[in-house]
Amino acid sequence: MKVLGIDPGTSVTGWGIVEAEGAGFRRVAGGAVDLPRRIPLGERLRRIHAAVGDLLREHEPAALALEKAFVAANVQSAFRLGEARGAVLIAAADAEVPVFEYAPAQVKLTVVGYGRADKKQMVRGVALRLGGPSAARADEADALALALCHLIGARLRSLVSVPVGEDGP
Amino acid sequence: MKVLGIDPGTSVTGWGIVEAEGAGFRRVAGGAVDLPRRIPLGERLRRIHAAVGDLLREHEPAALALEKAFVAANVQSAFRLGEARGAVLIAAADAEVPVFEYAPAQVKLTVVGYGRADKKQMVRGVALRLGGPSAARADEADALALALCHLIGARLRSLVSVPVGEDGP
Repeated sequence: MKVLGIDPGTSVTGWGIVEAEGAGFRRVAGGAVDLPRRIPLGERLRRIHAAVGDLLREHEPAALALEKAFVAANVQSAFRLGEARGAVLIAAADAEVPVFEYAPAQVKLTVVGYGRADKKQMVRGVALRLGGPSAARADEADALALALCHLIGARLRSLVSVPVGEDGP
Repeated sequence: MKVLGIDPGTSVTGWGIVEAEGAGFRRVAGGAVDLPRRIPLGERLRRIHAAVGDLLREHEPAALALEKAFVAANVQSAFRLGEARGAVLIAAADAEVPVFEYAPAQVKLTVVGYGRADKKQMVRGVALRLGGPSAARADEADALALALCHLIGARLRSLVSVPVGEDGP
């Protein structure tokens, strides 16, 4: 199962695709969409929408993992983050790919075992989990971490013991 | 010149198309897209994006007028409004239609002459300006008011006196 993680933003949108492989996980692809400030906001959002749509068509992931939005420095940054999230959510709805949201602390706890991990620890933790070199950029690492969080969660749920005579989850 | 006004929201998105006609203005069409809460957020955003795209293709307005977002009850509602705004901005960028943003007080001042007009006054003021019956819903009236605000502003700018020997605006 492949999962696309997206770390949305109107300046940079990070993305990463992770696949379950044996007992571990593999980085399929990852990167970041740079959105220079000189480009009008609408065009930047159009590019996020188009880029996520392209990734969904090319890699056909089973799910999209997105950071749950519930904190922002201020109302202005919440508007900007909401706009970028909207672009991602529309692309997922277009492709009929289900979206799962994870709070930052949940991602950190699941991926590195510490809910208050900093950016460096996250980059290292993601590389360790994926058994490869570190992501070139924190934006990509954050996106890979979201995809990992979803895959690890799914694996954990499949391990939950089920009372005899009842159906599994 | 036709202008599409949009009052975005993830529960209801109002829209209205206004055209300059002689010395006045005419309502070409208007309505509201209802987005029931039971529908997943991504699908609601996809519907806003699709509806605005359809309106832009059908009516070919010269501009899209949108409410400037700078206040929200809380960060959560700023995220939701940002997501709905993102859907509108992407549709406009797809169609290469320029977007103009107006603060609520600016719309009220321009349309009814009073920056703190309430909903009822806005609905009446819009009907008066458009020389027709009141909009059935406040969401549509707000969208028509945005389109009117852009058209009235454009007309005012065209009336600004230009020094002899210089080109007009």
